[in-house]
Amino acid sequence: MTPDFSFRLLAADGSARLGEISTPRGLIETPAFMPVGTAATVKAVFPNAVKAAGAGVILGNTYHLMLRPGAERIARLGGLHRFMCWDGPILTDSGGYQVMSLSQLRTVSEQGVTFRSHIDGALHDLTPERSIEVQNFLGADIQMQFDECTPFPATFEETGQSMQLSLRWGERSLAAFREYSRPGRALFGIVQGGAYPELRAHSAKALTSMDLHGYAIGGLAVGEGQKLMFEVLSYTVPLLPASKPRYLMGVGTPSDIVGAVERGIDMFDCVMPTRSGRHGQAFTWNGKLNMRNAAHIEDMRPIDGASECPAARDYSRAYIHHLLRAGEYLAPMILSWANTHFYQDLMSAIRRSIREGTFEDLAVRIREAYPSTTVADDAGPSEPSF
Amino acid sequence: MTPDFSFRLLAADGSARLGEISTPRGLIETPAFMPVGTAATVKAVFPNAVKAAGAGVILGNTYHLMLRPGAERIARLGGLHRFMCWDGPILTDSGGYQVMSLSQLRTVSEQGVTFRSHIDGALHDLTPERSIEVQNFLGADIQMQFDECTPFPATFEETGQSMQLSLRWGERSLAAFREYSRPGRALFGIVQGGAYPELRAHSAKALTSMDLHGYAIGGLAVGEGQKLMFEVLSYTVPLLPASKPRYLMGVGTPSDIVGAVERGIDMFDCVMPTRSGRHGQAFTWNGKLNMRNAAHIEDMRPIDGASECPAARDYSRAYIHHLLRAGEYLAPMILSWANTHFYQDLMSAIRRSIREGTFEDLAVRIREAYPSTTVADDAGPSEPSF
Repeated sequence: MTPDFSFRLLAADGSARLGEISTPRGLIETPAFMPVGTAATVKAVFPNAVKAAGAGVILGNTYHLMLRPGAERIARLGGLHRFMCWDGPILTDSGGYQVMSLSQLRTVSEQGVTFRSHIDGALHDLTPERSIEVQNFLGADIQMQFDECTPFPATFEETGQSMQLSLRWGERSLAAFREYSRPGRALFGIVQGGAYPELRAHSAKALTSMDLHGYAIGGLAVGEGQKLMFEVLSYTVPLLPASKPRYLMGVGTPSDIVGAVERGIDMFDCVMPTRSGRHGQAFTWNGKLNMRNAAHIEDMRPIDGASECPAARDYSRAYIHHLLRAGEYLAPMILSWANTHFYQDLMSAIRRSIREGTFEDLAVRIREAYPSTTVADDAGPSEPSF
Repeated sequence: MTPDFSFRLLAADGSARLGEISTPRGLIETPAFMPVGTAATVKAVFPNAVKAAGAGVILGNTYHLMLRPGAERIARLGGLHRFMCWDGPILTDSGGYQVMSLSQLRTVSEQGVTFRSHIDGALHDLTPERSIEVQNFLGADIQMQFDECTPFPATFEETGQSMQLSLRWGERSLAAFREYSRPGRALFGIVQGGAYPELRAHSAKALTSMDLHGYAIGGLAVGEGQKLMFEVLSYTVPLLPASKPRYLMGVGTPSDIVGAVERGIDMFDCVMPTRSGRHGQAFTWNGKLNMRNAAHIEDMRPIDGASECPAARDYSRAYIHHLLRAGEYLAPMILSWANTHFYQDLMSAIRRSIREGTFEDLAVRIREAYPSTTVADDAGPSEPSF
């Protein structure tokens, strides 16, 4: 018999929670950071290196995968896990966020979104039903309701209408999930409502009444700044049931993560480790290094000699600097791997500190090393160097 | 005491030779294929994967490394082996070939070559003395004399003058080697003379009298075609001492390699495995696959399920096809690794067949799978897809 999806709390330190999500494909220790495998690959990192880094779950993008290579094709090839050689749990987003940020000629209606592919211009529909169908073709262990990511800033009225639409899409997502899903798979709702406490409260209450497997907080990390993001978390997280995992989508910097864990968040995803790696940046316990900087030109130290990650431990900064200047593949390969590993080490340290009741000490240390604020502020150059 | 450089023959099958080069950094089984690490990296392959593939020696490019990051810099950083995390033997070329093919505003004189860097336009001199000095700054285990790669086609007179210049540069290279080198390091001469038997004979005789550690055959794989290349080998190889390793520079396809081994060649280098990988091609025992071809779109087979290489064994052709179409780093990473491994498996099979006296059976099989002719004919698109 397939084991059910379940979540249990193991410890708490203030509002920070240590937990464990059980899925048919394995356990996910929380707080968890999910490396992003947009197009069925965590960019420039071999899947066994992602696993060895300690990642218990990765994220796949419904929008990208439905367009290329196609959800039905992935299903014929045995599902996303087999396709990308990842046997652990996979969470897929609903496609709602990327259809708005990447596609052209979008038309949003009550029914869903009609859009043109950013790849070949072909016309597609994405509805709550289709999103859930695609996520099940992919074989996602944790699926997300189809929602509209409300832009920031937006008026109270716009934000409320958008949140209400997401709620109706949430109801339809749940109905579709009941139709398409298999035992052991989970569906998470997404709380919207922008920076308006009463809208967040309305959204949280309505979703909670649907008794979903977990709850995400959406519409953040879209340019509002860390201070406002934390403020929204402070009044929204307490409205969510303590017995379900809580997921802050698209976040973030180490500083964002500790601040969100401090406010009760259990799950994160972000392209930052790999994107920064492609841009020549390395995350360390002492802050972020820009490996293109001439200061590294004859620095024989590795990124982090104490790391268990071969990429962080075995290559000198001088060598990585050289590889970046020479435009060699090995540079993003080393840095994306090292950063993916660092993020998992960070989560492991966070979990240990919650167990030991020392989370605040760790949070102070991380904030010192990463004084920067939000994802949007800290995303690095908009054009990749590779 | 540092062990000397030495070569011993273990077996022969016709003119094909099984041998062993001993260096202070380890044994090199011959016939050997050297993966090319142009800018201190075998492109898109981790050094431990190159080692695990079975490579006993890799090649570094003097021209590239002297320009970036600089030979003196690499020396300050502990030498090329430490810099690029490769503890096995390294052979470096002399820079002579690339200074002619890559740099701008070259002036060739008796003294050497003056040229502008293709990277920043800075003016540099490369002489036999400087080439050997650079190779010793890098710490190369096997060094190549500075030579002029005679263009093809060229007249008898041009070819003869160029060959004579290379001989004089060979004498000066040897003198510099005696000055700069350390015990255990080796210097190879390069036989020139184009497709003129008497010029090849003159070059071979003069170099042999210098009693170098090994002999390369240069000026081939420059567009002359496989038939003529084999013809030159047929009359040139017998002029070289049987007791020294023989190296065919810049070669080649599997078919080129078996044809050259058949004529007594012991060592090869070529960018083909990694360049083809970046172009979406995979080498197999049944020939080369173009992974961009739509035929692979739902092919669940790996490149080679019998390979010990994870890259060839673990990922489906459908997945690699998808990664190529999506422009993902993982495609060249998988293919460059798999091809690097295939070439080492090919050399291992060649060595086994010589030991067992079945080399001709293997050669027939390779020629069936790789009917193509020369490097130049088979180099794929001139523009990389990544």
